[in-house]
Amino acid sequence: MANWQALIREQLEKDREASVKLLQEWVQSPSVQGAEESIQKSIAELLAKMGLDVDLWVMAGEELVSHPYFVSPRQTFEGSPNVVGVWKGAGDGRSLILNGHVDVVPAGDYAQWSDDPFSGKVADGKLYGRGATDMKGGNLSSLLAISVLQKLGVRLKGDVIYQSVVEEESGGAGTLATILRGYKADAALIPEPTNMKIFPKQQGSMWFRLTVKGRSAHGGTRYEGVSAIEKSMLVVQAIGRLEKERNDRLDDPLYAKLPIPIPINIGVIEGGKWPSSVADLVKLEGRMGVAPGEQMDDAKAEMETALQRLAEVDPWFAEQPVELEWYGARWVPGDVAQDHPLMEILQDKFAAVTGERAIVEASPWGTDGGLLTALADTPAIVVGPGVTQVAHYRDEYIVLDDVFRCAEIFALTMLDWCGVAEGPAK
Amino acid sequence: MANWQALIREQLEKDREASVKLLQEWVQSPSVQGAEESIQKSIAELLAKMGLDVDLWVMAGEELVSHPYFVSPRQTFEGSPNVVGVWKGAGDGRSLILNGHVDVVPAGDYAQWSDDPFSGKVADGKLYGRGATDMKGGNLSSLLAISVLQKLGVRLKGDVIYQSVVEEESGGAGTLATILRGYKADAALIPEPTNMKIFPKQQGSMWFRLTVKGRSAHGGTRYEGVSAIEKSMLVVQAIGRLEKERNDRLDDPLYAKLPIPIPINIGVIEGGKWPSSVADLVKLEGRMGVAPGEQMDDAKAEMETALQRLAEVDPWFAEQPVELEWYGARWVPGDVAQDHPLMEILQDKFAAVTGERAIVEASPWGTDGGLLTALADTPAIVVGPGVTQVAHYRDEYIVLDDVFRCAEIFALTMLDWCGVAEGPAK
Repeated sequence: MANWQALIREQLEKDREASVKLLQEWVQSPSVQGAEESIQKSIAELLAKMGLDVDLWVMAGEELVSHPYFVSPRQTFEGSPNVVGVWKGAGDGRSLILNGHVDVVPAGDYAQWSDDPFSGKVADGKLYGRGATDMKGGNLSSLLAISVLQKLGVRLKGDVIYQSVVEEESGGAGTLATILRGYKADAALIPEPTNMKIFPKQQGSMWFRLTVKGRSAHGGTRYEGVSAIEKSMLVVQAIGRLEKERNDRLDDPLYAKLPIPIPINIGVIEGGKWPSSVADLVKLEGRMGVAPGEQMDDAKAEMETALQRLAEVDPWFAEQPVELEWYGARWVPGDVAQDHPLMEILQDKFAAVTGERAIVEASPWGTDGGLLTALADTPAIVVGPGVTQVAHYRDEYIVLDDVFRCAEIFALTMLDWCGVAEGPAK
Repeated sequence: MANWQALIREQLEKDREASVKLLQEWVQSPSVQGAEESIQKSIAELLAKMGLDVDLWVMAGEELVSHPYFVSPRQTFEGSPNVVGVWKGAGDGRSLILNGHVDVVPAGDYAQWSDDPFSGKVADGKLYGRGATDMKGGNLSSLLAISVLQKLGVRLKGDVIYQSVVEEESGGAGTLATILRGYKADAALIPEPTNMKIFPKQQGSMWFRLTVKGRSAHGGTRYEGVSAIEKSMLVVQAIGRLEKERNDRLDDPLYAKLPIPIPINIGVIEGGKWPSSVADLVKLEGRMGVAPGEQMDDAKAEMETALQRLAEVDPWFAEQPVELEWYGARWVPGDVAQDHPLMEILQDKFAAVTGERAIVEASPWGTDGGLLTALADTPAIVVGPGVTQVAHYRDEYIVLDDVFRCAEIFALTMLDWCGVAEGPAK
């Protein structure tokens, strides 16, 4: 039997320089929502060169946009194609989806970044830029896992389906479209930035919009009005209390180390139109975490109750209740059994490659894994090389060694999961 | 000697229906900043028909925009002409400016209005719509004071200068332009909405913008970031404390009846870009009241100190101090002696017309009066028929009887202040 691990590591080392250059190019392509076409085309070309059956398409159609799991701020996706490449197996093996998104969140305030947010700069073994960690580095690990096996002359028994999707950051319409197009497998890996922790459970989340009302007046007699800005602070406090209640009662040991396992984040505030008028309307937008195993409708009901209780804090809210709207993105929570065979293989390979025991936790955020598990009957496990703490953050980076270590773990996992039909060539 | 008061009242009554129709047309013209051309042209035509020397011009030029008292979000004013009409006196009398602005603040949330904000609807003796009170109703009082005297065949000794200006709501560039064009007088009346209280002192005010910083992170691990939205609440509280300090020490008896004589209003909040990211920047915009007699620079310094003290509340602000910018509008405080001859005439006429004693107070907001007093050597007194409480407010209205009562007081005041050369015709 071949010493797979040594062969794989050696080959990855040989390709390392070219691989880093590829990741740089990916990060330098600022693929925020609506601007993914360039990177997707280059990925499709690459997959075709590797001999995969490539499917590049712009998702569309009534079945997609009217699907109960469809959430996106947009209804049409020109300029944002999906890409899937299938590495056909010889047959008689278990298939595996390697799913990853190419859309990245906006860079935020450029001035807070030490470099251009899309620099792709390499320094001290790290590669910097928006998307490096979330999740172009992980996508590279998946791609390298395939290419390294190919270069070693391996042919697997089961199919490997490489998915480069859009719209993850706004709720998973890209992955939903792959499911509706018929892609499924016996299991899936999603290399979201977990610091190589293994997440069989993933937190779901939902976006909400709150409308807080005030009553306008001249700023010079502001006591004649009611400031929606001041009232919105009471709303933010109430959301904080709800977050605390929901997290205090959570006793899943997989979440034990997280300060706030299922956070409620208020990310956007906007209100008032004139400095010297009392603001009569404030809009708050945020995301509410949903625990694995929790029904999304139950979480929604808790939010409604918390807002209704505001009338006890301030009678103004009895007169002018806060309006609640669930809009935009939604991620279904995911839940794969801890003794699933792929979980065992993964932990085994992790230990072999790193010499350490894998950390198994539940993810603090939603991923496309929930959709694959719930809709496509494809149990999805989330594990990847990115640095969780810098996702959606200024000076986002990834540690390059981790990318290659993940590729090694994934390649070894594929050998066991999909089975080996041929190779390695000598 | 003619019974002026009876003659004036009778003539106003005769013209009442046409006058109300005119005010309706004015209110139906939604003359928010940048959209004043239509109403100004119609006012210029009207003044010309009344025989006044009419000056309609679009203000411009280096002298204006580089003037230390110039404040405006814009530098050019196409579509927003000023209008001045001079009713020349026979000579040897005191001149009087009747100043009023035609710009109105935006309507805010249309849904909170019972009718279209620019309906001009008349019901129960009130005329409704944005600008009815602030201050098209008052402008009509000034216009009627001139026209009623003309119709009675009066010719005054002193000039009466009717000024229909733009840009009052953003800091007085319109009135500044009239001053730079050479208009001044022995005194001025400004019929801003005072509920017919007489304001020899006017509060000044300044606009400010605060930039509150956070640190971005993924909403699902929001504890890794610092929310600029949460920090902005501490800033709003600090502004509240500053407002209280400044008002607690104010002992001007003219302000005794106001709950907050010199308010600080935060009118606009805006921050964060993505519901599931921690907001790294929040912008707050507001207006700070300045007491009559207070130096604007002293008020600015107090705001700076209050923001610096935030570091004692939360060490985050030592690391990331709130940025303060004075921008946009600024109104110079005004201060006319309570025993000024025009004050005496006004109080006398008020008593004659209403049978009541005039209330003399200090205004809770800035007006163009500060500029006229400080720059044009034209002591300006603010008194007008509008309802203070509904200025900048939904369902703004004016009580029509008050408009005509103010016209009567102004006409009588003009007879005494400017002196009568001819009339009335029998």
